[in-house]
Amino acid sequence: MSIADYIAKIAKRAKDASIVLANTDTAQKNNALERMAENLISDAGLILKANDLDINCAKKKNRTSAFLEKLQLNHKRIKDMAGGIRQVATLDDPVGQVIKKWQRPNGLMISKLRVPIGVIGIIYESRPNVTSDCASLCLKSSNSIILRGGSESIHSNVAISKALVKALVKTGLPEGAINMIGITDRKAVDILLKQVGLVDLVIPRGGEGLIKEVTAKSQIPVIKHYKGVCHVFVDEYADLGMAEKISFNAKCQRPGVCNAMETLLVHKNIAKKFLPVIAARFKEANVELRGCPKTRMIVKGVRRAAEADWYTEYLDLVLSVRVVDDLDEAIGHIRKYGSMHSDAIVTENTENAGEFLKRVDSACVYVNASTRFTDGYQFGMGAEIGISTDKIHARGPMGLEELCSYKYAVWGDGQIRE
Amino acid sequence: MSIADYIAKIAKRAKDASIVLANTDTAQKNNALERMAENLISDAGLILKANDLDINCAKKKNRTSAFLEKLQLNHKRIKDMAGGIRQVATLDDPVGQVIKKWQRPNGLMISKLRVPIGVIGIIYESRPNVTSDCASLCLKSSNSIILRGGSESIHSNVAISKALVKALVKTGLPEGAINMIGITDRKAVDILLKQVGLVDLVIPRGGEGLIKEVTAKSQIPVIKHYKGVCHVFVDEYADLGMAEKISFNAKCQRPGVCNAMETLLVHKNIAKKFLPVIAARFKEANVELRGCPKTRMIVKGVRRAAEADWYTEYLDLVLSVRVVDDLDEAIGHIRKYGSMHSDAIVTENTENAGEFLKRVDSACVYVNASTRFTDGYQFGMGAEIGISTDKIHARGPMGLEELCSYKYAVWGDGQIRE
Repeated sequence: MSIADYIAKIAKRAKDASIVLANTDTAQKNNALERMAENLISDAGLILKANDLDINCAKKKNRTSAFLEKLQLNHKRIKDMAGGIRQVATLDDPVGQVIKKWQRPNGLMISKLRVPIGVIGIIYESRPNVTSDCASLCLKSSNSIILRGGSESIHSNVAISKALVKALVKTGLPEGAINMIGITDRKAVDILLKQVGLVDLVIPRGGEGLIKEVTAKSQIPVIKHYKGVCHVFVDEYADLGMAEKISFNAKCQRPGVCNAMETLLVHKNIAKKFLPVIAARFKEANVELRGCPKTRMIVKGVRRAAEADWYTEYLDLVLSVRVVDDLDEAIGHIRKYGSMHSDAIVTENTENAGEFLKRVDSACVYVNASTRFTDGYQFGMGAEIGISTDKIHARGPMGLEELCSYKYAVWGDGQIRE
Repeated sequence: MSIADYIAKIAKRAKDASIVLANTDTAQKNNALERMAENLISDAGLILKANDLDINCAKKKNRTSAFLEKLQLNHKRIKDMAGGIRQVATLDDPVGQVIKKWQRPNGLMISKLRVPIGVIGIIYESRPNVTSDCASLCLKSSNSIILRGGSESIHSNVAISKALVKALVKTGLPEGAINMIGITDRKAVDILLKQVGLVDLVIPRGGEGLIKEVTAKSQIPVIKHYKGVCHVFVDEYADLGMAEKISFNAKCQRPGVCNAMETLLVHKNIAKKFLPVIAARFKEANVELRGCPKTRMIVKGVRRAAEADWYTEYLDLVLSVRVVDDLDEAIGHIRKYGSMHSDAIVTENTENAGEFLKRVDSACVYVNASTRFTDGYQFGMGAEIGISTDKIHARGPMGLEELCSYKYAVWGDGQIRE
């Protein structure tokens, strides 16, 4: 079978399954999720064997230890994946929820109802746990999923998806609801992005290369899950103790994720007082600072930040630091260099806080809190398929509700338009 | 200046203006809208002169009278356009509305706030009134707009947009808020569709060629406003008087619009009774019927419907008619041939109504009412920028709320993630 036929077949099967899923009740979906979790545990041996193959390949290619760490599975990780699926089962079913309901003067009763999107393609890089996270969220929201993981986790992904699909079959759901593209040829993605009418949405999660390629080629709507160049701005009216706590948390609590701070902006009027203190804490935590000229005059031994640094999502123990003249300059910096993901101000001045909230056009804007809270769980939405960096459809944490579209159900008793 | 530079300059200007608009208050926006309406009236002479140029060109090209009718402006139509703008001024400002607000156990206060999308490109065909409708809706929702109308209405569109832009300048708003692409070269659209980071959304309104081209080329999110192949299904349990009234209204009240019925589906058990009656009414109204074999056996002189007819949006006094065995066949037909726009069932059987509502995956699904109600005004949403035929972001009538994105404003008092 050609790659084109293979992908078209998957897309068709996913679309057919989505029609069944759209009217599958909550109990049956939860039952399938429960089985999916069980199957991951009972297939752990097979999954770990497949993971070994991926790990060995990656080692032969001399991949970094950070890469191997993300790719590596073990019993604990598989148990966590199963736990994640069970968690999704406990979340409210979004399908059929009434978003709004109203009656028109002519008697028409209009309900805006949440419905699944249909078929969702997820294109991601090498973490195998994404496979089960995304599959469970799509199933709970009655969407079929087509997964395309990184080529270096192909064996792990195929093994995981096999365990999940078995659960569908056992619980009477169509196996086309969960589909893993089992070939690593990059043409498969190009063809997937052309399945207009079969695939309804594509979500690329990853770096610049992936995002650009998908955006350029897709004829299907795309919601990008791209980078987080997140800022904390310490205003001149900040509680400096709080500023220290928030800055440190935003950078160090988990530096490898998209809601971690990448650039610290400090008001010039408190820079001399604040920077030495926070720099000392960062030094202890082995954070490398890259600073503007003013920062470097205040803190010795800081490397000079290049223009490209301000745009960079380090995802590591590296931080850009800049002293700014005022709130305007801070907002201007965020507008220019940021990725509209998550940005925070630390200030006791309510007016400045309000200005920052109004004028910083990011998915999540914080006053006196760490950017690390941008997360479906932390927001109380439950699990998330990721953090959208787009402005269309879903912005910020994308959970079950955001995996839905809506339709209008209109009840009349013979109304016609005059 | 090259076309690429010209478009990039417009896109940049629009983006800059959108930053100002995002925090412009309602009173100032309404003031500008009021002026825009006044300017249309005071510039009517110039606009009609420009329209004459377009009409003369179209006549030379032997365009149909229907085409000329749509393109033609007169004092009454300009007054209606001004009235439309004033109507938008009376609508609620969506920007800043709190969609949801909640507090987390750790004290974080999260507000989901409506914010403008940013810069919206509208690509449309030849009706000049679309220019002022879309410009006023985008302004009210604090979005900058880049308009690209059909080449055959270029003079009219430029004259209208000049009148509108003058109002912006007079009321202290940036003129980059409303932009008309003043050249007809098709390359301009290709370049517009590549303005990633400057243009946030593109809405193509038009026929298959336009929609396909925009979808294939755009690197910016697209919300399609495509065709309506709308159905009315007359169930065996229908009140046949009501079915007659609804079918006739859905086809004939305004056949040239996307929410008009294009295909009538009739349950076999009432076909012999219902079809002759409705066929007689359609005959009186000069509606041409194209039927399936069963229809043609019941009503004499009906032309045979070709496979392509079932897919066709006639936008005219033509109707496809098919007799179906049951509800399942009706739903199957709609799924296969419909465009997921607006579909209705006429039935007194609540169970069948419920099945139809659940299983027909269209933006608007009706029970016992005409499909002609799919419209922002009729739904009580106010004016609309069009009817989305997509499932991502906006579906069905797209009004001011749907021209917005959202952001999360999060207030804390020093929260960090543990």
